[in-house]
Amino acid sequence: MPHGLDHPPAALRWLDPPEGPAVALLDQTRLPLDEVVVVCGDVPGLVDAIRRLVVRGAPLLGIAGGYGVALAALRGEDVRAAARALASARPTAVNLGWGVRRVLTAFEDAGGGSAAARAALEAARAIEAEDAAACAAIGAGGLPLVPAGARVLTHCNTGRLVTAGDGTAYGIILAAHRAGRLAKLWVDETRPLLQGSRLTAYEATRDGVPHAVLPDGAAGVLLARGEVDLVLVGADRIAADGSVANKVGTYTLAVLARHHGVPLVVAAPTSTVDLNTPDGDGIVTEQRGADEVRAFAGTRAAPATSPVYNPAFDVTPPGLVSAIVTERGIVRPVDRESLCRLCNCEPNDMRR
Amino acid sequence: MPHGLDHPPAALRWLDPPEGPAVALLDQTRLPLDEVVVVCGDVPGLVDAIRRLVVRGAPLLGIAGGYGVALAALRGEDVRAAARALASARPTAVNLGWGVRRVLTAFEDAGGGSAAARAALEAARAIEAEDAAACAAIGAGGLPLVPAGARVLTHCNTGRLVTAGDGTAYGIILAAHRAGRLAKLWVDETRPLLQGSRLTAYEATRDGVPHAVLPDGAAGVLLARGEVDLVLVGADRIAADGSVANKVGTYTLAVLARHHGVPLVVAAPTSTVDLNTPDGDGIVTEQRGADEVRAFAGTRAAPATSPVYNPAFDVTPPGLVSAIVTERGIVRPVDRESLCRLCNCEPNDMRR
Repeated sequence: MPHGLDHPPAALRWLDPPEGPAVALLDQTRLPLDEVVVVCGDVPGLVDAIRRLVVRGAPLLGIAGGYGVALAALRGEDVRAAARALASARPTAVNLGWGVRRVLTAFEDAGGGSAAARAALEAARAIEAEDAAACAAIGAGGLPLVPAGARVLTHCNTGRLVTAGDGTAYGIILAAHRAGRLAKLWVDETRPLLQGSRLTAYEATRDGVPHAVLPDGAAGVLLARGEVDLVLVGADRIAADGSVANKVGTYTLAVLARHHGVPLVVAAPTSTVDLNTPDGDGIVTEQRGADEVRAFAGTRAAPATSPVYNPAFDVTPPGLVSAIVTERGIVRPVDRESLCRLCNCEPNDMRR
Repeated sequence: MPHGLDHPPAALRWLDPPEGPAVALLDQTRLPLDEVVVVCGDVPGLVDAIRRLVVRGAPLLGIAGGYGVALAALRGEDVRAAARALASARPTAVNLGWGVRRVLTAFEDAGGGSAAARAALEAARAIEAEDAAACAAIGAGGLPLVPAGARVLTHCNTGRLVTAGDGTAYGIILAAHRAGRLAKLWVDETRPLLQGSRLTAYEATRDGVPHAVLPDGAAGVLLARGEVDLVLVGADRIAADGSVANKVGTYTLAVLARHHGVPLVVAAPTSTVDLNTPDGDGIVTEQRGADEVRAFAGTRAAPATSPVYNPAFDVTPPGLVSAIVTERGIVRPVDRESLCRLCNCEPNDMRR
């Protein structure tokens, strides 16, 4: 294995000299079939990896963005230009821009030069360490929301592949599994990119979590049959009013959960909360390419000329969210005031 | 092209001697990439084609089942055994057993022998002709339910590939397109077998219907954004109380449509109504194999050991269905009494 990486390889690993400086990424587009590590030795390579979803997931994008700025600093490149390129690689996940800005600020506050480059690297390492701690706090804090013998439905992928710890929603699921209170994990396959069947089922298999994969359209009948006690998902951006942007299909689950009286719980670090976005209307959601839908795992599945509607995310209004679990505690009810209390700000600061 | 078939090949065509007797089927598992015709010269071959979804869709299964019985009769085989094998090839679509029984009855009423075999073939031809007429009536009858400039969301495939005419739900969509009142057809890709992206988009492309394909999970955000005026689907079995069994994902759309105040209309011939099934709980829904979800076109997309939940159908309760369009008229409101009136029976006949 290159670079002495552990098996299974970590989703992201900073490489110091002599191998680096570089960011080593487990290529998530190749899972579960192949475990391939991509080493990004410069910022354009890392930007490309972010765009192609080699690395993905809101918390991990924050860490990747931070290390990207440190990489530019250590290479003596234009750090501001690198920060701009990294922050704009994907528009929806707030953590990416947050991680980039935080490391850029550390660099600039340290006055540039090689000492500043070391400060940037320390800031990126701090983001990673804080995310690991946040995952542990989210897992422990969310556990009381999982009833004994719970059958939990999740969407997309929120585990070790997208965080520096056990994950956000998946961190709670793993905590429940370890505590013996998880009867079953239902995994939405999560079209078009199948992060559920490719990645969450891969993590659940590795962790021995009892699970089953379902087509996204089958979530309705599962809920109708009383087979789901809790819907538990992550978030890519949480607006100041508690609106949650997450992988497309989350909103559909939120409406289904409400119709069947099942709680929908969102788990995310507070770095996902974007106080600069007042509400769901302000969240820009990325539209992705047609071939993600027209093809399935590389095989064409629709006429080549058929247009496609392929938003990467949707927005769930706060009224459909039962609780948000963060490393600082649980927001419940989900509204502007509760979220603001958690973030230690004045409600007026959150309105633009 | 074999057997002088038209291009594009018909979904199903009866072949007389010297080519037959046989049933020629356009292999729907190969669309849209390849137009391959499978010729079934005996009943086991046809049963296999039905199981493998080479031929599919409730109305077309009724026609296929009927021709299957005629095939056994013309070959001088055990017609009752053939009828049993055909009727049990798939459990949910009521039309399959209905077509089989109707042709078997014609055969037995004609006393067996070669005259009876001809009677069986005539009965199968009659089912086909009646289905073509039913499609025309459904298209014309459903048109007033489509508002001008409508954006219609559909699921699975309900057109010429599954009927002897323009289709059921798709028949109404095509009528609306021809009448200039269809602004856009939204096509759910319909996992796991992608009948929407593979087949409905193929038909829409051929017919010049403006359309776009979306992942099933994106229907929620489409409705939330006010981009859908009508949800229009077919049915595989309608119970006596108006419960609708249809491709998995339909129930999810029904809940979403209700949440957003958008009507859900079901289009189906009356042969889809099963008065022997009192309500939705009585509908047996087929569970299909795990590899339909774990892989597509031979490419694996999930760990090989991950269990799968893969019901082929779900059941939408009548309270979520705005109207059912049949060749005999529109059922609205959808309840036991309205459905019974349409089928010209006493409500008590419908309770078992």
